[in-house]
Amino acid sequence: MTRYRSHTCGQLRAEDVGKTVRLSGWVNRVRDHGGLLFVDLRDHYGLTQCVADPDSPAFAAVDTLRAEWVVTIDGEVVARSDETVNDKLPTGAVEVRIKSIEIQSEAQELPLPVFGDLDYPEETRLRYRFLDLRRERLHENIVLRSRIIADLRRRMTEAGFMEFQTPILTASSPEGARDFLVPSRLHPGQFYALPQAPQQFKQLIMVAGFDRYFQIAPCFRDEDARADRSPGEFYQLDIEMSFVEQEDIFQAVEPILRDVFVAFGNGKSVTEKFPRIPFAEAMRKYGSDKPDLRNPIEMSDATDTFRDSGFKVFAGQIAADDKVRVWAIPAPGGGSRAFCDRMNSWAQKEGQPGLGYIFFREEEGELVGAGPLAKNIGPERTEALRQQLDLKAGDAVFFTCGIPSKFVDFAGQARQQIGRELNLIDDNKFEFCWIVDFPMYEWDETEQKIDFSHNPFSMPQGGLEALETKDPLEINGYQYDIVCNGIELSSGAIRNHKPEIMMKAFEIAGYGPEVVEEKFGGMLNAFRYGAPPHGGIAPGVDRIVMLLADEENLREVTMFPMNQQAQDLMMGAPAEANAHQLRELHIRTVVPKD
Amino acid sequence: MTRYRSHTCGQLRAEDVGKTVRLSGWVNRVRDHGGLLFVDLRDHYGLTQCVADPDSPAFAAVDTLRAEWVVTIDGEVVARSDETVNDKLPTGAVEVRIKSIEIQSEAQELPLPVFGDLDYPEETRLRYRFLDLRRERLHENIVLRSRIIADLRRRMTEAGFMEFQTPILTASSPEGARDFLVPSRLHPGQFYALPQAPQQFKQLIMVAGFDRYFQIAPCFRDEDARADRSPGEFYQLDIEMSFVEQEDIFQAVEPILRDVFVAFGNGKSVTEKFPRIPFAEAMRKYGSDKPDLRNPIEMSDATDTFRDSGFKVFAGQIAADDKVRVWAIPAPGGGSRAFCDRMNSWAQKEGQPGLGYIFFREEEGELVGAGPLAKNIGPERTEALRQQLDLKAGDAVFFTCGIPSKFVDFAGQARQQIGRELNLIDDNKFEFCWIVDFPMYEWDETEQKIDFSHNPFSMPQGGLEALETKDPLEINGYQYDIVCNGIELSSGAIRNHKPEIMMKAFEIAGYGPEVVEEKFGGMLNAFRYGAPPHGGIAPGVDRIVMLLADEENLREVTMFPMNQQAQDLMMGAPAEANAHQLRELHIRTVVPKD
Repeated sequence: MTRYRSHTCGQLRAEDVGKTVRLSGWVNRVRDHGGLLFVDLRDHYGLTQCVADPDSPAFAAVDTLRAEWVVTIDGEVVARSDETVNDKLPTGAVEVRIKSIEIQSEAQELPLPVFGDLDYPEETRLRYRFLDLRRERLHENIVLRSRIIADLRRRMTEAGFMEFQTPILTASSPEGARDFLVPSRLHPGQFYALPQAPQQFKQLIMVAGFDRYFQIAPCFRDEDARADRSPGEFYQLDIEMSFVEQEDIFQAVEPILRDVFVAFGNGKSVTEKFPRIPFAEAMRKYGSDKPDLRNPIEMSDATDTFRDSGFKVFAGQIAADDKVRVWAIPAPGGGSRAFCDRMNSWAQKEGQPGLGYIFFREEEGELVGAGPLAKNIGPERTEALRQQLDLKAGDAVFFTCGIPSKFVDFAGQARQQIGRELNLIDDNKFEFCWIVDFPMYEWDETEQKIDFSHNPFSMPQGGLEALETKDPLEINGYQYDIVCNGIELSSGAIRNHKPEIMMKAFEIAGYGPEVVEEKFGGMLNAFRYGAPPHGGIAPGVDRIVMLLADEENLREVTMFPMNQQAQDLMMGAPAEANAHQLRELHIRTVVPKD
Repeated sequence: MTRYRSHTCGQLRAEDVGKTVRLSGWVNRVRDHGGLLFVDLRDHYGLTQCVADPDSPAFAAVDTLRAEWVVTIDGEVVARSDETVNDKLPTGAVEVRIKSIEIQSEAQELPLPVFGDLDYPEETRLRYRFLDLRRERLHENIVLRSRIIADLRRRMTEAGFMEFQTPILTASSPEGARDFLVPSRLHPGQFYALPQAPQQFKQLIMVAGFDRYFQIAPCFRDEDARADRSPGEFYQLDIEMSFVEQEDIFQAVEPILRDVFVAFGNGKSVTEKFPRIPFAEAMRKYGSDKPDLRNPIEMSDATDTFRDSGFKVFAGQIAADDKVRVWAIPAPGGGSRAFCDRMNSWAQKEGQPGLGYIFFREEEGELVGAGPLAKNIGPERTEALRQQLDLKAGDAVFFTCGIPSKFVDFAGQARQQIGRELNLIDDNKFEFCWIVDFPMYEWDETEQKIDFSHNPFSMPQGGLEALETKDPLEINGYQYDIVCNGIELSSGAIRNHKPEIMMKAFEIAGYGPEVVEEKFGGMLNAFRYGAPPHGGIAPGVDRIVMLLADEENLREVTMFPMNQQAQDLMMGAPAEANAHQLRELHIRTVVPKD
């Protein structure tokens, strides 16, 4: 018993009947039922029904209560009658007869009611976040987030990882996104940057002789907001390990992620052993390096079916350029003209010329391919294709034709669109995979040069020899992604810990040693004093929580998010600084005239 | 067995003799003993002695090794002879006969050797932090820090607290120190601030209906560095609870801190039950609100001894002003003229006129007080004083005279100086206490006005009524500190959750409602929609680790600290930004000419 409570609002059960108790919480709502006043009292732990009859000395006080007032109630626990027991509420077997009530805090008219399910505009929700957070769903999401993070930490610690904090005021590091800068007071004209990720620091931790590092690390990117990206800060489960190969990292991380998803996945099934899918295979089968494996559709090559066939649009392209391919996208259960036409229209809306198709149906006891393409290529090729793809009556298959690198993204979208339209995607699954063997380099069309396709700090497969002897576009890196339900949770890599290989790798991408020294001098210098082979990964915590909370917007799993314009409406950030502050920081603002 | 190791360098024991093993690590040092080459191989987990004789196929390769190269060694575990067993090393019963060796990474000439205990300049240590961190003591400190934080988290979670992340890009909040500012790209002329502490957010979390919050929270203050204060960021164990009084917070926090100190205190004793000492009593007895209770000296009032006495310097002051007091500082074991004169000189060096004293000795079988003061006040008063303070032969007592508020700091220093000089401070203890009943207000001599003495968000004892009826300087707040061995680990308070009391509290300190609305509008507004009584505390993590690691400088317990000039010498921060970045952020630098 404290001054404010003997029990929480989620605690009382049938066995507490007869006890004198004290509860404190918020008035969820007050109901007047034939002269009886019912107060649903709510706190972090639950909700308890309290009741005052007109004879109660507290009746007059209870009658003044309004929603969201904070009160302390003294009373006696009584059993509810059978017909008023509420099975949905853990405290639903009892209620508290109010003997006295103390008002701790009143509430003004609410701009956003806590009780009820009405939707409110984003701006209202963010400005009154402290009210929104009292609502059940958001409250539970935030609790879930906290529990997931605590669980991740526990599992990491049990797996022998140590958490270390890396600096937040640090140097700008060109990792692709825009930095937040912090002007220095002591060093006029100079700036700190907030870390986009602790990438260099975690590698330095390995060079410093620590072995298994992790951190629930705040990261900062000054990029425009998206549903799955906060406009300012986000958290990642930052991991780095020494003396490991790629598979060692998979063996360490995979069980932790799997177990967290099993623990918090609400009974959804979770991939037992995450498949390792080479990047090239993922692109070929799924049209994406983030395949949603809940979708059973796998694409395959059907170029030979159309080569020299009667479907001149494809046959002509194939004959003209030996890089041209036709990919087949099977659509099990999509075998109707209506569906195929709908997909064709969808493709046109996506800016494509269309989406050719064949669908299969029983005609007079025979299984035949229907649609214009089937007619053009004739029954023999159609049947060969059907057998190749193992299609049945009621199934369809769609085709894209061209240079694969140009149509692959669209093919991947089509695969996913078909999967969704045909309800092939099982929402009760978390399907994980590792994507491996990413190419080190890609051809940058705009700059007309070879550039890194992924992370320049990764170790190229084959090491220095590969860099010196192979076509750069043929070299893969020890780079990998972990993907769940089509969402990339993280990239990772075995790092390039050898200065001479790093110099060569950057040289291929057109960066001279002076650029490397200038941009990554801190880390490169460390590698010159005994660096262990090391690698890591950094799954996005916010994305993990979004998946497990089944939410599609980061703001639903973040305590105090900013809005899309990177403003904190509740605290009023950003805001003007005063002249004295700016003078101390040696900066002046330059506000555009309009 | 992975590609790099079958065991860590801390793992092999006598029972592993005969096994073929693979180890990877850093060459701690190479020794040539009569033709045998000994390699001490080191990793995060420990050190293993490896040996190659001239017949080993790896001998030539081992002969090329230099300190801090990273190598992988294959070999056989053999028992060491009895006379070469090293009991101090967990692996000291065995050594590994090197069969082959693979060099993973070479090291240049070291600017800072890892092996050995030589001190190196701060600048070298920070520039080559990745080498310094390989050294045993710093490595262990950082591991200890990680373990302490993990343990704090575990205990907090087990005590029903949930960890929530609060925003790092937020609004400036005038909490006393200087803010770090972050220019906004999307909102020209506006700035985010990094949080000095998540004070307002944690209170908002309570208003949002969560109950027991904690966070290992990064905090940022742009203040000049001190040994116990990093120049940029630091961490606190941020805690807030709803529906609590002061004692509830003590009951929650005290066992957690005690148990962490017991767990990591290397066998030092830890206060069983932390005494609650009112601020006024702490000042009177210890001359400090951060008393080092390992020091047994307690001061007491000796004004009456000197009133109308023959020691005119004190007697005159006492007669002239009834606020004048004489405080006695006993010095058990300090009863020699040499010691007393040394303390007197110390006081003069501290800018005081001196430190009067009496010391007690046996003279011809009698216990007498010696020194000029004893002569001046005569044997009767001297003996009365001796009895009052329970002093024996060989003890001394020092005196300060004046207005207590003016000399109290010095008296506290003198108490501590005496304690240190006389070895009265037991280094094998952690002595905790709570300091309670801090005054809400103090008289600001400079501004000639009443101001908050501590935290303006605290609830005044007596609430609104006290503010309306009492002399402000007589009002205490529900404010408290937790102190260990003379170091303040944290302030805390029961918060003022009622807007009308807050307005009144600020009014007394001379701030009108418009100032309060402008500065604390976010939080104040939240209090208008149903706020629970709440309070908290925020012990400094870095200070806890410093105490437990027995270090006196934060840099010894921080992975990547900045130097005193707030620079990261390894990564090169802060640094100039480019013109494009500044343009995007709508700022221009104003660098002073000189």
